[in-house]
Amino acid sequence: MTEDAIEHRRLIVAGTGIAGLTAAIYAARSNNDPLVLEGDEPGGQLTLTSEVENYPGFPEGLSGPELINKMKAQAEQFGSELQHGIVTDVADDERPFRVELRDGTVYTCDAFVAASGASARTLGVPGEDELMGYGVSTCATCDGAFFRGEDMLVVGGGDAAMEEAHFLTKFADTVYIAHRREEFRAEDYWIEKVGKKVEAGEIEIMRNTELLEMHGSAEEGVDHVTLAQNESGHPSEKLDDAETETFDFDVGAVFIAIGHTPNTDYLEETGVELDDTGYIVAKGGKGGGQTATDVEGIFGAGDVVDYHYQQAVTAAGMGCKAAIDADEYLEDLPDVEAESEAAAEADD
Amino acid sequence: MTEDAIEHRRLIVAGTGIAGLTAAIYAARSNNDPLVLEGDEPGGQLTLTSEVENYPGFPEGLSGPELINKMKAQAEQFGSELQHGIVTDVADDERPFRVELRDGTVYTCDAFVAASGASARTLGVPGEDELMGYGVSTCATCDGAFFRGEDMLVVGGGDAAMEEAHFLTKFADTVYIAHRREEFRAEDYWIEKVGKKVEAGEIEIMRNTELLEMHGSAEEGVDHVTLAQNESGHPSEKLDDAETETFDFDVGAVFIAIGHTPNTDYLEETGVELDDTGYIVAKGGKGGGQTATDVEGIFGAGDVVDYHYQQAVTAAGMGCKAAIDADEYLEDLPDVEAESEAAAEADD
Repeated sequence: MTEDAIEHRRLIVAGTGIAGLTAAIYAARSNNDPLVLEGDEPGGQLTLTSEVENYPGFPEGLSGPELINKMKAQAEQFGSELQHGIVTDVADDERPFRVELRDGTVYTCDAFVAASGASARTLGVPGEDELMGYGVSTCATCDGAFFRGEDMLVVGGGDAAMEEAHFLTKFADTVYIAHRREEFRAEDYWIEKVGKKVEAGEIEIMRNTELLEMHGSAEEGVDHVTLAQNESGHPSEKLDDAETETFDFDVGAVFIAIGHTPNTDYLEETGVELDDTGYIVAKGGKGGGQTATDVEGIFGAGDVVDYHYQQAVTAAGMGCKAAIDADEYLEDLPDVEAESEAAAEADD
Repeated sequence: MTEDAIEHRRLIVAGTGIAGLTAAIYAARSNNDPLVLEGDEPGGQLTLTSEVENYPGFPEGLSGPELINKMKAQAEQFGSELQHGIVTDVADDERPFRVELRDGTVYTCDAFVAASGASARTLGVPGEDELMGYGVSTCATCDGAFFRGEDMLVVGGGDAAMEEAHFLTKFADTVYIAHRREEFRAEDYWIEKVGKKVEAGEIEIMRNTELLEMHGSAEEGVDHVTLAQNESGHPSEKLDDAETETFDFDVGAVFIAIGHTPNTDYLEETGVELDDTGYIVAKGGKGGGQTATDVEGIFGAGDVVDYHYQQAVTAAGMGCKAAIDADEYLEDLPDVEAESEAAAEADD
């Protein structure tokens, strides 16, 4: 690709989840003409949620994809341009930034909002894709209340699994935790909290147990699952072992809590600080610039930053902040418009 | 009031603006049975906005009061109890907290979310109340785009006035700034930014000028204003002075930017840290507990904390965080339920 063919944009937003779309709405209204790049999971994590009841403003509830479509329409209405594109590299050692996409397209931009989200890890077992959003979920806070009175299965052994299992006791008949090993890697804090719920008969722990298959339908939800147990752990790797027991188990919902991975690979070579697990370290604090990263002009919003709250409305709040922060940054850039007008004239 | 008559609540939320209502939605869904106290400005700042175009999820826009009513319905639907009440005092030297209202009612509660907002200062001149939301606004970011191509008047001389005037140049024909003194108290940073816009002919500054009256109608918006000028400043105090000139001036919108006052008087005697201007200093940072204050069990959200972004969706995001933080705090309280059940039994 020759350099003349590179399109320059004032602002690029990577991601079309709640954070990216909210950033786009605000950026478009501030005349920053955002190009919004939609990745492989258009709409982000929220599209996995069958009904959103807790996004403020919709007392009647709506589906995740519906909410996303409304925000998309809103972003486009104010002039955001949405386009498919996976960012593979951001060069922050030059200004404007150089942004490369997987298909080879290159853009330059004056400011960049990373809102590329986090992807929930899934098991990759039969039935999982078909039932995702219909009884299988990666978010207890989002979906727990839909299965009041049912038996629920949480898969995982880390903090998130313990937290989700603990939270789900509000709604579940019994919460089962299936963990592939004997020991949990969760903090003691969470293990103790879950322990109390086990004593109270609200949680039952199935150690050395893995989920092999989920059964049910989009109409009826999850009917039952197939589990494997082996005292020495990791039963799915030992299905031929005589010690491995395989059996069906009735549950009404499955929550997969084996972690999320923030989609920040493309920032690894930049000056943007990432924590050990890949989350962007944003400035935070009080007043303006809360979404700023260590690279001036690159901002982070939504699940690439937030490993704790991870709600639609918190992502939206951060997307708004990123657009405002980016607007303040862009307003302070010397003569960006004058330069690009001069360049445009030079092309004539 | 005798101590037996004091009702105990698990969680009290002070405020029914966006932050308070979002906290209520989340708190109710987490079974924390919130009592939500509605103050003298039900619905908060947003109700001053005639049309909300930038709250994500409503591409067709809606009015501030409409959005508030939707959130109220949503909060009540999940079990929040809304009640009129102005908090005058929170005693944080006892547990549970003791919360006193202006009408003498006293509650106790285990956790408290301060979402009592900030009130925009207004001028108190004729026409202002009638035209508020119809051409008169206290929020340029909310309402600036509705008056594209019009001449606009910003009243004020601080950072907020400069920032709003600068922002409004995106939309206005000319932005006029009326300031009652010769010197601005805004930072140099903002004075320089506005100075560049003055050079560019986009902003015109009227020093030693005060707004005496606004003229127009709810149907047609602002038609013109009456201004007074006196070279020695503060003309409204010198209307009989021969040096004071009074004249009518045509503008299509008036933005009052003479500051906000956070409604946090009732926290002054507590351990909650407030900054010089009365805003709550919340923990911020990464991970959980971002809305925590210096007093465990008291959380802050919305315009009582945020003096910078002040958008509906950022307030909503913070309200959600406060409810999640409060839930985590309440879950860790030893046997609150057991105690209150024991108390209830003792009453029988």
